[in-house]
Amino acid sequence: MTINTLTKNTKHLLHALYQSGVKHFVVSPGSRTTPIALLLAEYDRQNKDIKLYIDVDERSAGFFALGIAKTLQQPVVLLGTSGTAITEYTSAVAEAHISHVPLIILSTDRPAELQDNGAPQTLPQHRIFGELTKKFVAFTLQDEQPDVTEYIDFMTQKLIHEAVDAPSGPLQINLPLRKPLMPQLHEQTTIIVPPLKFDTIKKDMMSMQLSESHVVILAGPNEGVDYQLELINFSKKYHVPVIADVLSRTRQKTTIYGIDALIKANSLTSAHQPDLVIRFGATPISASVLQWLKSENIPVWSVDENASADHSRHISRVFQLSPVSFLSQVSLNNDEMFYQLWQNLNQKTRYITGEAGIASVLDKVLPEQTAVFVANSMAIRDMDDIFTGQTTQNIYANRGVNGIDGVVSTALGMSSTFQQRSVLLTGDLTLFHDMNGLMMARQYQLPIDIVVINNNGGAIFSFLPQAAAASYFDLLFGTPLNLDMSKIANLYDLAYVKIPTAEALKQVLSTPVIGPRLIAFESDRSNNVKAHQQLIGGSDA
Amino acid sequence: MTINTLTKNTKHLLHALYQSGVKHFVVSPGSRTTPIALLLAEYDRQNKDIKLYIDVDERSAGFFALGIAKTLQQPVVLLGTSGTAITEYTSAVAEAHISHVPLIILSTDRPAELQDNGAPQTLPQHRIFGELTKKFVAFTLQDEQPDVTEYIDFMTQKLIHEAVDAPSGPLQINLPLRKPLMPQLHEQTTIIVPPLKFDTIKKDMMSMQLSESHVVILAGPNEGVDYQLELINFSKKYHVPVIADVLSRTRQKTTIYGIDALIKANSLTSAHQPDLVIRFGATPISASVLQWLKSENIPVWSVDENASADHSRHISRVFQLSPVSFLSQVSLNNDEMFYQLWQNLNQKTRYITGEAGIASVLDKVLPEQTAVFVANSMAIRDMDDIFTGQTTQNIYANRGVNGIDGVVSTALGMSSTFQQRSVLLTGDLTLFHDMNGLMMARQYQLPIDIVVINNNGGAIFSFLPQAAAASYFDLLFGTPLNLDMSKIANLYDLAYVKIPTAEALKQVLSTPVIGPRLIAFESDRSNNVKAHQQLIGGSDA
Repeated sequence: MTINTLTKNTKHLLHALYQSGVKHFVVSPGSRTTPIALLLAEYDRQNKDIKLYIDVDERSAGFFALGIAKTLQQPVVLLGTSGTAITEYTSAVAEAHISHVPLIILSTDRPAELQDNGAPQTLPQHRIFGELTKKFVAFTLQDEQPDVTEYIDFMTQKLIHEAVDAPSGPLQINLPLRKPLMPQLHEQTTIIVPPLKFDTIKKDMMSMQLSESHVVILAGPNEGVDYQLELINFSKKYHVPVIADVLSRTRQKTTIYGIDALIKANSLTSAHQPDLVIRFGATPISASVLQWLKSENIPVWSVDENASADHSRHISRVFQLSPVSFLSQVSLNNDEMFYQLWQNLNQKTRYITGEAGIASVLDKVLPEQTAVFVANSMAIRDMDDIFTGQTTQNIYANRGVNGIDGVVSTALGMSSTFQQRSVLLTGDLTLFHDMNGLMMARQYQLPIDIVVINNNGGAIFSFLPQAAAASYFDLLFGTPLNLDMSKIANLYDLAYVKIPTAEALKQVLSTPVIGPRLIAFESDRSNNVKAHQQLIGGSDA
Repeated sequence: MTINTLTKNTKHLLHALYQSGVKHFVVSPGSRTTPIALLLAEYDRQNKDIKLYIDVDERSAGFFALGIAKTLQQPVVLLGTSGTAITEYTSAVAEAHISHVPLIILSTDRPAELQDNGAPQTLPQHRIFGELTKKFVAFTLQDEQPDVTEYIDFMTQKLIHEAVDAPSGPLQINLPLRKPLMPQLHEQTTIIVPPLKFDTIKKDMMSMQLSESHVVILAGPNEGVDYQLELINFSKKYHVPVIADVLSRTRQKTTIYGIDALIKANSLTSAHQPDLVIRFGATPISASVLQWLKSENIPVWSVDENASADHSRHISRVFQLSPVSFLSQVSLNNDEMFYQLWQNLNQKTRYITGEAGIASVLDKVLPEQTAVFVANSMAIRDMDDIFTGQTTQNIYANRGVNGIDGVVSTALGMSSTFQQRSVLLTGDLTLFHDMNGLMMARQYQLPIDIVVINNNGGAIFSFLPQAAAASYFDLLFGTPLNLDMSKIANLYDLAYVKIPTAEALKQVLSTPVIGPRLIAFESDRSNNVKAHQQLIGGSDA
């Protein structure tokens, strides 16, 4: 048979995506996606290194794809059908925008002649994500002009390059399609997409000898390639203390952890004060550390390929460079005593009770290199304060916009990229927001332990001034859901364990299972506040 | 105590909303919403006609508010916190945009000095819904300029007027707020918002005597006030056949129902052919009727306050008027035999088996004026073909963008406006998409029967060309979820009944319960296709 235009152009699109490094496709099928989805399913069967996931809830699908793209640092395609289906991706696109993840939205659409004219399931999809996407293009796959095929070949490769190039970000490819939507299957014509190559020239600085003797490195959340080895070597060679955010993926025994709790417990003295802080990556989880740098008027340089800004407006110099590149070109004369003083902070006793115990158990018992996804709000703060990174630095979260939506799906997307079991640490409110995401855990039997701290609502508000408005507190802030965790497990056929104490998590994690498991720790919001206030005593300095 | 600026301006905003007719507020609490939410909770306790709902999942909240606004035709406020929370409203905003529902988004935001600068939970929220919102405004509630208070008073009333004025639509009020966020509670200062009144001058036509003798009215989905009485009187007076879409809210024994099935069964002869069709409201559910009008080249006029367009591009004249206004100014000379010929179509036998039986049972047994929300895809088509409207015309659906997301929440929003029990008719795939919405049914013990036709996936695709791609069908189109309906009921503490046949629904509906109930009918996709093909025999004409 002769290949028809729709089939030919769709195959060019898929092949150009593949050639540009897209290996993962998350599809939420609908009527309008038919030609792309069918040819993609065929393409998937023909190529072993393609992974195709079907996720019917587009909100979950968006975050599932985000999880894969974030973990592998590769572009991942989301394919969705016209109408509100596309708008369901908005939250994941927003997170990808702020946290620099190359999410590629293929939005199928009604054709131009059906726009704004009463046709069903029709929205103005053109640039529907507005500023949240880096680029937008529309491909008319049914257009017979040969130019169109060449345009698809070229633009797809160009766009994927731009999505991946720092600062990485999401983009939208809109695909208006008219009926008939059925493509040709088993069509044999060879598709050749002329490759488009990009040579990236990295900016270099002159090699730099710093005169300051009390330099500290603050390693913030890492959105790029790992640099733990280079950082630790640098730290040892030049005696530079490293404050490591739990998302920096650089924590180990010589990095300082839990800076937020240390500052709150007044553990930093004037002797700890640096004369320069070099900050890597995105905004640190600890708000206190940024406040401290500003209030003490300590100079801060930022080294970040994405040139993420500083909302404390205190950075005085920005290097748009990878940490590795920066570290290879800088030398220091740091004071060894100063280094030792900072090291001692790691010896401070943490009095860990209640919910915080979960982070502590994870710190002790996780198998090496376990990937851990951490929900926002309380979970990430606990991990930042307590998790030392002895066993694994493989920690992820959605810290672009810090949403509590989509966390389950992002974690599942992450776990789908690993053979080894992963862990999601979350509260019940975050779990509820993306409960639908659990369908993917069941459908694909993903190897993940979902540890839920069930304090029946929004625990973080108990720490904020809102707690004073007692008569409206539970209605507006506590928002108790009264969800029975065992029933959630039952609905999605998840293995289920309820643990009476944080310590009991050790035993559970050492009991192997296959597929997804929900582990519920029942907590109490009011005790939790007390436990956290006493995390580091002020007197043992 | 002296009232502070934040408290004063927030109270002005709330009072201006209230004065403009906003009585329903759906709040998804977060940190940034604190001042608005607290003062709103206080305002709610002081005013008996305000209804405040808390819905922690913003996607569900968006559709819940849509359900209220759609049913009451009143502006409803959604209050959400900064970041991805706001983007979760996008799908409900899209549906409101296309189906003309005045949804008012109060999006709290980080202040201007934290934008695009690495601050947590910060997105470019300014006009974040793009073309999907009719208007946008930002109020700086903490600004001490007296002008600002006057601006809030005036603009709020103006904006709500514009949201409600045809074509109605959603709008966004963005509220950048800086810390401290706590307002003053129990503050006694009297707030006076100078009222802003609008006189709406309705366009009138000259009274019009039509010469055509074979006029047919096609009453499409009604997004405005009901006009059944006027329509039926008009129809009887001038012998005009009325083809009534199930969402027109005009069906009764003299209106023609199930036009789609009638056309597919070739029941329309040349004698049925009109010389003019007057179409009311939005795009009809039946695609066949639009195709028929176009292929037979029958002139069509559209009467629609919202001036929704016609994607079949066949309308020759548009009256931007309410049906009531139109009917009061038009007279006809229609042929009585022609009227009778059309009436006979209602006598055609429907052979109802399988899933379609549910719509038939609802038609027979619902208490008068029961509100029924109908999911898209198969459910709405069955209702349009089978439901005669003898008992109730109170039928709703999301037919702006026809999404399968948010249906549960919209139906619950609808049911919250009625004392009487409501019904939601849905398939399992649509139920799954918005399963989180069920939390509101439990929290507020909403009086609703959720009838789910469980055919384990996307039944509609079995009717489309996609069914031919057998080896990819279930993966991409059938998308079986294997959900156990009883476990869903168990998770949300819903009363639960499984019915073996559609007939059994009669018995269940006559058994009173309090609060939400899930009624599951287990179906089979392949039998369903056969049952629908034989709905109207071609031979009994």
